[in-house]
Amino acid sequence: MNWNIYLSGEIHTDWRQQLIDGAKAHNLPVTFSSAVTNHEASDAAGDLLGAEDNSFWRDHKSSKVNGIRTKNLIAKCDIAIIRFGDKYKQWNAAFDAGYCAALDKPYITLHADDIIHPLKEVDASAMAWATTPAQVVEILRYVILEK
Amino acid sequence: MNWNIYLSGEIHTDWRQQLIDGAKAHNLPVTFSSAVTNHEASDAAGDLLGAEDNSFWRDHKSSKVNGIRTKNLIAKCDIAIIRFGDKYKQWNAAFDAGYCAALDKPYITLHADDIIHPLKEVDASAMAWATTPAQVVEILRYVILEK
Amino acid sequence: MNWNIYLSGEIHTDWRQQLIDGAKAHNLPVTFSSAVTNHEASDAAGDLLGAEDNSFWRDHKSSKVNGIRTKNLIAKCDIAIIRFGDKYKQWNAAFDAGYCAALDKPYITLHADDIIHPLKEVDASAMAWATTPAQVVEILRYVILEK
Amino acid sequence: MNWNIYLSGEIHTDWRQQLIDGAKAHNLPVTFSSAVTNHEASDAAGDLLGAEDNSFWRDHKSSKVNGIRTKNLIAKCDIAIIRFGDKYKQWNAAFDAGYCAALDKPYITLHADDIIHPLKEVDASAMAWATTPAQVVEILRYVILEK
Amino acid sequence: MNWNIYLSGEIHTDWRQQLIDGAKAHNLPVTFSSAVTNHEASDAAGDLLGAEDNSFWRDHKSSKVNGIRTKNLIAKCDIAIIRFGDKYKQWNAAFDAGYCAALDKPYITLHADDIIHPLKEVDASAMAWATTPAQVVEILRYVILEK
Amino acid sequence: MNWNIYLSGEIHTDWRQQLIDGAKAHNLPVTFSSAVTNHEASDAAGDLLGAEDNSFWRDHKSSKVNGIRTKNLIAKCDIAIIRFGDKYKQWNAAFDAGYCAALDKPYITLHADDIIHPLKEVDASAMAWATTPAQVVEILRYVILEK
Amino acid sequence: MNWNIYLSGEIHTDWRQQLIDGAKAHNLPVTFSSAVTNHEASDAAGDLLGAEDNSFWRDHKSSKVNGIRTKNLIAKCDIAIIRFGDKYKQWNAAFDAGYCAALDKPYITLHADDIIHPLKEVDASAMAWATTPAQVVEILRYVILEK
Amino acid sequence: MNWNIYLSGEIHTDWRQQLIDGAKAHNLPVTFSSAVTNHEASDAAGDLLGAEDNSFWRDHKSSKVNGIRTKNLIAKCDIAIIRFGDKYKQWNAAFDAGYCAALDKPYITLHADDIIHPLKEVDASAMAWATTPAQVVEILRYVILEK
Repeated sequence: MNWNIYLSGEIHTDWRQQLIDGAKAHNLPVTFSSAVTNHEASDAAGDLLGAEDNSFWRDHKSSKVNGIRTKNLIAKCDIAIIRFGDKYKQWNAAFDAGYCAALDKPYITLHADDIIHPLKEVDASAMAWATTPAQVVEILRYVILEK
Repeated sequence: MNWNIYLSGEIHTDWRQQLIDGAKAHNLPVTFSSAVTNHEASDAAGDLLGAEDNSFWRDHKSSKVNGIRTKNLIAKCDIAIIRFGDKYKQWNAAFDAGYCAALDKPYITLHADDIIHPLKEVDASAMAWATTPAQVVEILRYVILEK
Repeated sequence: MNWNIYLSGEIHTDWRQQLIDGAKAHNLPVTFSSAVTNHEASDAAGDLLGAEDNSFWRDHKSSKVNGIRTKNLIAKCDIAIIRFGDKYKQWNAAFDAGYCAALDKPYITLHADDIIHPLKEVDASAMAWATTPAQVVEILRYVILEK
Repeated sequence: MNWNIYLSGEIHTDWRQQLIDGAKAHNLPVTFSSAVTNHEASDAAGDLLGAEDNSFWRDHKSSKVNGIRTKNLIAKCDIAIIRFGDKYKQWNAAFDAGYCAALDKPYITLHADDIIHPLKEVDASAMAWATTPAQVVEILRYVILEK
Repeated sequence: MNWNIYLSGEIHTDWRQQLIDGAKAHNLPVTFSSAVTNHEASDAAGDLLGAEDNSFWRDHKSSKVNGIRTKNLIAKCDIAIIRFGDKYKQWNAAFDAGYCAALDKPYITLHADDIIHPLKEVDASAMAWATTPAQVVEILRYVILEK
Repeated sequence: MNWNIYLSGEIHTDWRQQLIDGAKAHNLPVTFSSAVTNHEASDAAGDLLGAEDNSFWRDHKSSKVNGIRTKNLIAKCDIAIIRFGDKYKQWNAAFDAGYCAALDKPYITLHADDIIHPLKEVDASAMAWATTPAQVVEILRYVILEK
Repeated sequence: MNWNIYLSGEIHTDWRQQLIDGAKAHNLPVTFSSAVTNHEASDAAGDLLGAEDNSFWRDHKSSKVNGIRTKNLIAKCDIAIIRFGDKYKQWNAAFDAGYCAALDKPYITLHADDIIHPLKEVDASAMAWATTPAQVVEILRYVILEK
Repeated sequence: MNWNIYLSGEIHTDWRQQLIDGAKAHNLPVTFSSAVTNHEASDAAGDLLGAEDNSFWRDHKSSKVNGIRTKNLIAKCDIAIIRFGDKYKQWNAAFDAGYCAALDKPYITLHADDIIHPLKEVDASAMAWATTPAQVVEILRYVILEK
């Protein structure tokens, strides 16, 4: 069995690459997927269908185009990793966590311990909380390969 | 038909009361519900089952007890109102929005226009975005009573 | 048992009233519901949340507000009546039919016989096709009251 | 991941071929599917099971046979493209859109801007609206290949 | 709690009345429902929408009208009783049993022991097999009232 | 796309083989599956787990073992063919039809025209009615291969 | 809103009565339900349909009759309380917990701390673990009445 | 078709290996999967994310990590085998059975006849009860390969 792992959240650090490298190092049979992580391309996704003057509608249009991708990838994933960094609002990550929870998709949160309290509802529905990408790799290895 | 309206998010302003008063003023056939909005009681929900030393597990335990209520109320609501204020992380509100989206529960976001961009994914799955409680009341009146 | 009947489609003739009158005449235990049928109010539903310059977004915003109502009413109905008149595109009626079909909601189409061919896919998923409101009332009476 | 794209609607212009060619030009990992687009074969699908005198039942029988195919293809698609041209009633396209909406299948509408208003409910549940096949190809490329 | 009991199958003996009388004798909080059991009215249900020359289509039309009722009643029932008598094909009763099985509706079969073998698949998905209406009443009483 | 076709019903004539041969002749990308059609093996399926004195329980045990197979195959099929011959009760075929109907699996009935009336409910939920295996092959070819 | 509370597990102590009394003392708007807790009646449920020689089939028959009740009550409950005492195998309680978990029904376990380890999977899917009926009452009061 | 078989329960005897060997001997097209069966590794699964002082939370954390694996494997299985041995509480096995029952996953129980009575609810929802691994292999062979 190949496992589909959806990576949600922070795009300003290299945690995705660390997961990918770690999975490769353990020869895990996994396929990673993500929303588009190129920030500018993501914000401009709707521009492909014509420019918008109004910033609300520009964001709306782009988010819906991005949703075509993310709705499909979350629906097909076996495990989601939801990453919260120390900057920005990151409401999309919490939104993905709620979406996973309602679909019964097991997810693991990845965040530092100084934001335990504001993330308590998100963590309460998670299957695990990790603080480092290395821990996530360990969990994936255990879940997928352990006898 | 009576409509169940779930109110999610910010607990530090009186937006819930404004909605309740506005609905009463229009005689809307609605029942409002919310998570426990007494912050201290909510944080201490798990203490009813014994104290915890570790803050992660205290939060975890309380959030799960709160989840017994919120899972039921969201599952039974017809419309959710998701409110984002200008303080705190409010990840629980974004989580509820994602949960509603996956369950196909129509929701309305209520937030100021200076946080349009970080809320773009949450708004993209919403049925409407309002900036004042009065607007939400107007929408409820229209949706429920208009001929 | 009370039956919820959702009435979708044409708003320019009095077919809804004929159904309501017919049901009353037979003392049927039914509750009828509809999208907002005041054309102008419906088109302006989104204006309650602020005006839009762009006609696409004005329509979009209003349609989503209307969707809060129609999604709920269709989800709660026991039978839908989908009416196609002889004017306009009426794509919303066909959309509602497809929505009902996917949710396994039994629906009855109501249209003249000169549009049988273009409605063949819509009729193929319907439980019945009627040409007059009186026939629909007859079917409702039979379905609900017959021993 | 290979993406299944269902193409619904207009059969009198070459938009399907433009999409197929565009996808090939970008090496997109996609499989396109459609209802039978040979108009005469489609209308005669039921004749394989014996002729019908009555045109309603001939259409009914053919539409159901066609439904064996379309129900399966829509259920298996990842994205649907719903095309509205400038001729005919095209109620089947709006029906497919409603069907996709109820199944939570992301769909993109493809139509000129002179029919924005009658399509507002169909567009309100869409993830995107495009006016040219080239735009749809751009969206598919972005959704599927962008990093 | 009031229990909805759907009665499917044989219409030529008085088993329905025996159940109704038995339930009344025990003051069971139940509501019984059935397809239309007036054979002629049932066969003619579609005639309300116009006569048909072709017997296949007449049956088809009537069965679909009847389906508006039965689909709703089965979806709302808590328990179904599926009765097989000693005459006729009774494929509709077996069809209802399969429909209940796929919807996870608990059903009880009611039939003599000389048709155990041909009913083995139907009984294998049933929660109980009774041979007399009195036994069914006993089971209902036990299931609903026993402490 | 490969299509999974489930064949339900009559085991005393060679209709399954005719379908398999016809599909091969047209190079249809299909996989056929069935319940165990060896009558004796099927009746004795439960004996693998120990003999039963009581014929009801022997049938029950065997039917449940057979159900492990049929539940899975029906759940995975894209189209079911439900065959009614001129002998025996064939309640299992009608049961499978009801099961398919509730799961929204498109099915085609295959039976002679002298049993139209008792099969009217089964046919009303079918997507097509055929009288010969050759017709079924024609429909499969059309549904799967037609452009 | 009235809350339906399903009580599963141990029948040899008075924990159910303690919950009922506690809920009454707090005026909680709840309705409690349970499987039949009269052990002998429960074991004999199938005897209503005729005696069985074989103890496996007697148990099987009775369990299925009991399942008509428990399937319905669990499906309709808002919260389940799963009680493990210190005697017997109590596999039915663990079975109910798994059933609730798969249906996304929030449940609370009630057991002493000396069986934490063997119940770890059951507790991992629970929303809370209580050690006394009084704690469960406290949680119900909080979940249902807290502002 | 390849069949996914999930093996749940007892880890102290070699029943899994007997099934694997038996399946190989019959060339069955099956893939077996299980929870982690290394008892110590399983109990320590959560330690990968940091040690816990409190034994309840250590078990909780490990069980949730294990749940990432088991939830996925059960959701993807075609048949589950639920094994009860003569030692320990084995509540996780009964939990898995309830989980399978609610998801409509066919399962076979494997246990000695001295625990028929306490397992009656678990067996009542099973498709078969076997007493030896060899019988399970026989059933798998029959279900998968019989013509």
